[in-house]
Amino acid sequence: MHTDQDQQSLLFVESAELDSPVAAQSPAVMEKKVGKRKAVARKSTSNTKSTGKSNAPMTAERMASQQREISISEFFAKNRHLLGFDNKRKALLTTVKEAVDNSLDACEEARILPDLSICVTQLEGDDRFRVTVRDNGPGIVKSQIPNIFGKLLYGSKFHRLKMCRGQQGIGISAAGMYGLITTGRPISIRSRTSPRKPAHHYKLAIDTKKNRPDIMHDDEVEVDWPHGTEVSIDLVAAYNKGRQGIDEYIEQAAIANPHTRIQYMNPLGEEIVYDRGVDELPVETREIRPHPHGIELGTLLKMLKETERQQVGAFLQGEFSRVSATVCKKVCDEAGLTQRSWVKQIDSGTAERIYKAFQTVKIMAPPTDCLAPIGTQQILAGLLKGLKAEFYTASTRNPTVYRGNPFQVEVGLAFGGNLPSDGLARVIRFANRVPLLYQQSHCAIFRSVLDTNWRSYGVSQSSGALPGGPLVIMVHFASVWVPFTSESKEAIADYDEIRKEVGLAIRDCSRKLQTFIRRRKRTERESERRSVFFRYIPEVANALQAITGDAKDGLMERLNELARMRTELADREMDEHGQIIKRTRKDPLLDDSTVIVERETPADEHDESLFGGHEAKRMGKGVASKRKRKVSKKKRR
Amino acid sequence: MHTDQDQQSLLFVESAELDSPVAAQSPAVMEKKVGKRKAVARKSTSNTKSTGKSNAPMTAERMASQQREISISEFFAKNRHLLGFDNKRKALLTTVKEAVDNSLDACEEARILPDLSICVTQLEGDDRFRVTVRDNGPGIVKSQIPNIFGKLLYGSKFHRLKMCRGQQGIGISAAGMYGLITTGRPISIRSRTSPRKPAHHYKLAIDTKKNRPDIMHDDEVEVDWPHGTEVSIDLVAAYNKGRQGIDEYIEQAAIANPHTRIQYMNPLGEEIVYDRGVDELPVETREIRPHPHGIELGTLLKMLKETERQQVGAFLQGEFSRVSATVCKKVCDEAGLTQRSWVKQIDSGTAERIYKAFQTVKIMAPPTDCLAPIGTQQILAGLLKGLKAEFYTASTRNPTVYRGNPFQVEVGLAFGGNLPSDGLARVIRFANRVPLLYQQSHCAIFRSVLDTNWRSYGVSQSSGALPGGPLVIMVHFASVWVPFTSESKEAIADYDEIRKEVGLAIRDCSRKLQTFIRRRKRTERESERRSVFFRYIPEVANALQAITGDAKDGLMERLNELARMRTELADREMDEHGQIIKRTRKDPLLDDSTVIVERETPADEHDESLFGGHEAKRMGKGVASKRKRKVSKKKRR
Repeated sequence: MHTDQDQQSLLFVESAELDSPVAAQSPAVMEKKVGKRKAVARKSTSNTKSTGKSNAPMTAERMASQQREISISEFFAKNRHLLGFDNKRKALLTTVKEAVDNSLDACEEARILPDLSICVTQLEGDDRFRVTVRDNGPGIVKSQIPNIFGKLLYGSKFHRLKMCRGQQGIGISAAGMYGLITTGRPISIRSRTSPRKPAHHYKLAIDTKKNRPDIMHDDEVEVDWPHGTEVSIDLVAAYNKGRQGIDEYIEQAAIANPHTRIQYMNPLGEEIVYDRGVDELPVETREIRPHPHGIELGTLLKMLKETERQQVGAFLQGEFSRVSATVCKKVCDEAGLTQRSWVKQIDSGTAERIYKAFQTVKIMAPPTDCLAPIGTQQILAGLLKGLKAEFYTASTRNPTVYRGNPFQVEVGLAFGGNLPSDGLARVIRFANRVPLLYQQSHCAIFRSVLDTNWRSYGVSQSSGALPGGPLVIMVHFASVWVPFTSESKEAIADYDEIRKEVGLAIRDCSRKLQTFIRRRKRTERESERRSVFFRYIPEVANALQAITGDAKDGLMERLNELARMRTELADREMDEHGQIIKRTRKDPLLDDSTVIVERETPADEHDESLFGGHEAKRMGKGVASKRKRKVSKKKRR
Repeated sequence: MHTDQDQQSLLFVESAELDSPVAAQSPAVMEKKVGKRKAVARKSTSNTKSTGKSNAPMTAERMASQQREISISEFFAKNRHLLGFDNKRKALLTTVKEAVDNSLDACEEARILPDLSICVTQLEGDDRFRVTVRDNGPGIVKSQIPNIFGKLLYGSKFHRLKMCRGQQGIGISAAGMYGLITTGRPISIRSRTSPRKPAHHYKLAIDTKKNRPDIMHDDEVEVDWPHGTEVSIDLVAAYNKGRQGIDEYIEQAAIANPHTRIQYMNPLGEEIVYDRGVDELPVETREIRPHPHGIELGTLLKMLKETERQQVGAFLQGEFSRVSATVCKKVCDEAGLTQRSWVKQIDSGTAERIYKAFQTVKIMAPPTDCLAPIGTQQILAGLLKGLKAEFYTASTRNPTVYRGNPFQVEVGLAFGGNLPSDGLARVIRFANRVPLLYQQSHCAIFRSVLDTNWRSYGVSQSSGALPGGPLVIMVHFASVWVPFTSESKEAIADYDEIRKEVGLAIRDCSRKLQTFIRRRKRTERESERRSVFFRYIPEVANALQAITGDAKDGLMERLNELARMRTELADREMDEHGQIIKRTRKDPLLDDSTVIVERETPADEHDESLFGGHEAKRMGKGVASKRKRKVSKKKRR
């Protein structure tokens, strides 16, 4: 079985044995059981002269001397593309995004209406930028600042089951680390917890080898804001307007967070202010305990080991969601325990029986007050503000569960109007109110859009492609734990439950779209019929006058009335004017989740566009102008 | 600027101030500079009665009390899909893959021809499996076993610039952690470093909260193998034959590692043995130092801080690749230093000048003996063994560099024969000899294949799609640092340099394919011409005999000779028989990187197929039978 080379290597294994410091201890440990010990030792020592060459093949001992711990910072510094620092442009986006996420989370947790100031300026050189984000949040106590900004995997959100933007404790310190690696400059933080205190000012450089903050500067400063946190990072980056850039990001963030005021200064010195759409915070969410259906055997074992509760009943009812006294009793019965059994006496076999009972006993779905959806009305408001379409609808599904984690899907659709009609539909994705701009094709949301049979709703679609035409699909996924496909949080993993729920929400909306599209077609058909009637009525009236001698005017009047009656549908849509239609309850289109806007004259007040500002708006207009004439017959009634 | 709600929140900020233990220390720190201190303290203490309710909004202090460190194991346990444990099927593949990678790396480093035994068995229940992988490597010294298998981010490969399969120090301990989480059972390791010692036997459970091994069992055992390591993991998984399964993985691993013997027992109890294709190890690779072109400013600053060298000259020449005395002098000149300047006196401005000098001074590319490509001949051998095609070619590019990291691309093409001709081409990807089975569409290799204009080489291709027809494209990417898109190491990040180099290698091969396809078409044309000639020659000979009175036999002979001469090309390809054609140097197709195989009769000796065994082979045959007649005219010459 062994070749010559094999045996040669064996010699090396032997000869290097006592050479490394780590190896020195193993023979000692071994003395317990081994009979051949002495022979081994003799052989080893007699051969030591041949070792120590660095070109010699590796032995277990030489390998051991090279093994060491890798800090999480070193790991991500080398693999920084995993965190969204693949290239200069994305680095800028990721930095802004992480800072904004943290600010919004902090404000909402403290129940403060967020007021953000984002400033991105170009420094010396082509590719150096400074990102400064300030919020009016509660601030951060001095002792925590170094860890939060100078240590990866540190934070308050990881261990809680609660809907928030951040979840890993990596983001902002990784942005600081990227800045440090590329410019050598530390991250700067000013934070104030009260108007009666000055702000703390820190400059921190992350020590990647140890994953801990190096404090370069620690001071107190007077600032002109009462409370909040300001973080400032210098980094090598690139700024572009348009798709996947920070402008688009901030615009979308404003749509998904209408309770937030954002003042944004871009590197060109242009200031854009997004005012609040609503003056109330999203519903306050509650932290929940894990649900038995989302627990794995290993996690259960770990919880049993770590719990401070002594009896099984207290453990099950106290540490899980929805384990009532009844459920608890059933689980215990199935597992062959009583509620008074001691937690410490549970062996792995019993734990496995508890685990199996979790799967079979009927348990209520987890509570859903841990979720705060954007809401149908807010989505409509956001779409109306951002897009010049004709038809808008939105749907918020009821919460549901994947792997024990509650989640909720919301969809908004915008169709027609000035949206570009010659390309594919646009998908806008959000997770816990954070816009997702990259890795669309890996995202469960995108896959659900592809899976939908759009043709059955009257929208064109090639097989395996996005639907075509003037359509924007906005999807929001809210959960206590978003299963992102990577640390950079750009796409949602493709769980069946998620894909299905997104699909259902899309169908809710597209059924309404279908009604709208059908009706529009019918209206067009009827108004064409009517215009044909109108064209011939004078001729017919002339002829009738000649035959019957009746007055032409009277005839025409009656004929016109007849034509109008027979093409009533076209009429119904034409009678009233104004911007927004609200229909009655009987109409299938017409609950308050749908809005139809008249687009005869381009409305000047809609300045923002989801399509990266001016360029896209132009595109939208140019394309839409042709078809505007077609659809312009329809008015709000 | 502040709303009512804002002010209300401010009160909460105040009132909770002294409530948390962390907050208690900050007022003390603050005494240095703040004048308003006393007022603050008074206000805070007078309000403490209102705090402590868990439903009150968060304050900086309450937040602080929730902040804590997250262990890397907790992080990956929750985000295990990042490591390739998305679902049961992939979990099985990832576990096998990590164990095999480690085994091969260890054997090669110790210069031992690898001999692997892989055994996957189904345990009780539908979805519990045991994966056991044993190698004949150098073994692991006792003291290192717990860390290597029970701690994430621990290993010898992360800090070295050297081509190897593992690079993160996560893989095998993550597999063990997954096993523990899903089955509650620890990972079991037996390792022996010498035939004169017994093996160590450990059972380890990773303590995710602390990212360190819990030793459940520690023993010495007698085993019947002289040295090596055996790891055994119980896990919840699913086994399927076919694409993206462990069978395919092991088959591809055998192709990329022809120096390895693999004995594989699948869960159905079928044993498959992949014998060695070659009896020599890949070239031994050397570790290299970082190259100045791949260094970032922050990394340079860090190296300056950590180096033990005292003078700049020694630092530059000693810690970087390719910094000769001349280069060193130039860099120092540009940065305004001398080689004798003290490292400790370099400030960040000077460091930045050194960094800039690195970019402008001409420096030789990094050494490439850190790379061990598979090699053209080995790739051909692998393709010949695995695929029943007609045309085979391979190309190994010269090494090149991205971000200071040397890398090398190899491509093999197989075309025609029994490959399925009615679908898209198949892309087989390898990184450092490891098969990549998932996330194809995110991989730089796949993008390069899409980018290639296959139609210009005579292969069909729809726009934006893979080429069509009976084509397999194998690409191997070898580097000291493979930039994977995720920790699960399934796809290579899309760097321009990488995509370009893969494209060039593909073109090297596809030019040869083009020549082959053209020639085959010409041969077909010529042999059709000849068959037309032959059909009419008897008629013509009859007519000539009638006119001239010459003997028909002689006429026919001369006419046949004429026809044969005019369709010489068809002939040239038909004259000889046998399995493999080797052509002369003058022929553009014919260096030894190309092989053409006669496929008139299905060759029985080729039993393995890269298309998941029997099913695919059947498919291949069925499809290929139609076109076989067409191409069968061509023979080896």
